[in-house]
Amino acid sequence: MTLAFALTCGCRETAQDTDPLPSWNDGKSKQSIIEFVEKVTKPGSPDFVPPEERIATFDQDGTLWCEQPVVQLEFVIYQIKKMALDHPEWKDQLPYQAILEGDKSYLINDLTNNHGKELMKLFAATHTGMPLAEFDMEAKEFFNSSRHPKFNKMYTETVYQPMLELLQYLREHGFKTYICSGGGNDFMRVIAEDTYGIVPEYVIGSFAMNTFQQVDGSWKIVKDHKNLFINDKETKPAAIEQRLGRIPIFVAGNVRTGGDIAQLTYSETNSLPNFQLLINHDDDVREFAYAEKDNA
Amino acid sequence: MTLAFALTCGCRETAQDTDPLPSWNDGKSKQSIIEFVEKVTKPGSPDFVPPEERIATFDQDGTLWCEQPVVQLEFVIYQIKKMALDHPEWKDQLPYQAILEGDKSYLINDLTNNHGKELMKLFAATHTGMPLAEFDMEAKEFFNSSRHPKFNKMYTETVYQPMLELLQYLREHGFKTYICSGGGNDFMRVIAEDTYGIVPEYVIGSFAMNTFQQVDGSWKIVKDHKNLFINDKETKPAAIEQRLGRIPIFVAGNVRTGGDIAQLTYSETNSLPNFQLLINHDDDVREFAYAEKDNA
Repeated sequence: MTLAFALTCGCRETAQDTDPLPSWNDGKSKQSIIEFVEKVTKPGSPDFVPPEERIATFDQDGTLWCEQPVVQLEFVIYQIKKMALDHPEWKDQLPYQAILEGDKSYLINDLTNNHGKELMKLFAATHTGMPLAEFDMEAKEFFNSSRHPKFNKMYTETVYQPMLELLQYLREHGFKTYICSGGGNDFMRVIAEDTYGIVPEYVIGSFAMNTFQQVDGSWKIVKDHKNLFINDKETKPAAIEQRLGRIPIFVAGNVRTGGDIAQLTYSETNSLPNFQLLINHDDDVREFAYAEKDNA
Repeated sequence: MTLAFALTCGCRETAQDTDPLPSWNDGKSKQSIIEFVEKVTKPGSPDFVPPEERIATFDQDGTLWCEQPVVQLEFVIYQIKKMALDHPEWKDQLPYQAILEGDKSYLINDLTNNHGKELMKLFAATHTGMPLAEFDMEAKEFFNSSRHPKFNKMYTETVYQPMLELLQYLREHGFKTYICSGGGNDFMRVIAEDTYGIVPEYVIGSFAMNTFQQVDGSWKIVKDHKNLFINDKETKPAAIEQRLGRIPIFVAGNVRTGGDIAQLTYSETNSLPNFQLLINHDDDVREFAYAEKDNA
């Protein structure tokens, strides 16, 4: 009995002494997060939220890791260069030629004036037509052999330490932490578990419906382009609904193109207590500085 | 100490004495299920499967509850009749007219010879264009006020007791039990938690991508028809992949149109130990008797 009591006291002291968000500056943001988590998890509190409703969704690019450059676009470029060895005709063929020549203005113009139709061809070439297991290996090879141009680190090392702490803090309080981001389901799943502790079924991204078919006599999931769904802006709440049938009570996103405003708004429609976190990129020295263009 | 020991022994005896599947006939099926569950959950067993990989998917219609008639089609008919009060023109307009006149041969012919295109119009009229919350209320009203034509029970009472026991038995052994069925995500979610203990995020069904928009000044999910995906046959593995990014180790389906063969096959591609359960309907007295047409 004495030993048990001593151990219990020891645990309590440790819990009180440990800052759950040590990388966060002391201030209103950190204080608001902790106050929210404490009030929704305290049994008997008027704001108590049962564990099954503690759904948190996090954007990835610019919220969990650096989005300059956008990592999945770097993967597309990496793959096109690799595949070009088997496609000598690409050196004279747009859009491949622009990638091989490093002409980034071509893609920017395509996105601005052409709904990204040429970019979609590059995605189709690098993301469809192969068994899922093969795509996963390609993505792993990219992650293992690429470095961020500014930091000279692996992309999986450009994650934000404060956000890793926040994910962990929420999970320790019974939250289910999901990614809800524009990246592809299958692409993000390659790194989500090791990088963020987020299992495959908790990754909500852009997707096309893959197919189940026989390849060389074996049944396989093959990457396809049917029912393409881009997970961004107003479609993010639709994807959360399709996947979970629940409204999150905690959403984290970041400034840039207004891509997270809709999922932040969606959590505000929850009748349960809810929290919205919007990350502003204002540190040009340690990372990059950029703001919302229209102040959304 | 003595009391604790006595209690522990008591629990063990109870566990050994209690049959986890009391409604199942003793025989090979029941024995195989129990042997499988025991070997994949026993720590140190060469067939041990870690809890996060214990994914089980269950078809609904004909596997978890009676599929004669198909419940969601009864909902369509119920709604068309109700909505017809505001649509007097429907009494002379196909396909509505056929529903109002109870002409089931019209739909059978449409499904057989017309890819179900007229049926899709009926689904669009009853399943799209309204806020999700409103659709949920309509579905609840249908379930509360409809009865099965043979059994004169609510449809949620036509679930199979042996399958409820199996779901519970699997969950008690750390399995995550999912529905993977042709019914609509949103439709099945209305009854899945109360009926099967299956939470909304564990329901994998047919879907269209809904939209997030302002309705009368409030942001809402609105039922839409974009990216329509019918979850059946070879598309079931694709839906499981989109939702979970994992291959199930346990799949249960039933005979009729071969709708579950692909998801059963999918689980066989798992490198972990796996189990396939195919339910044959051979009891015309207590339910309905029907078999696979092509012996799939």
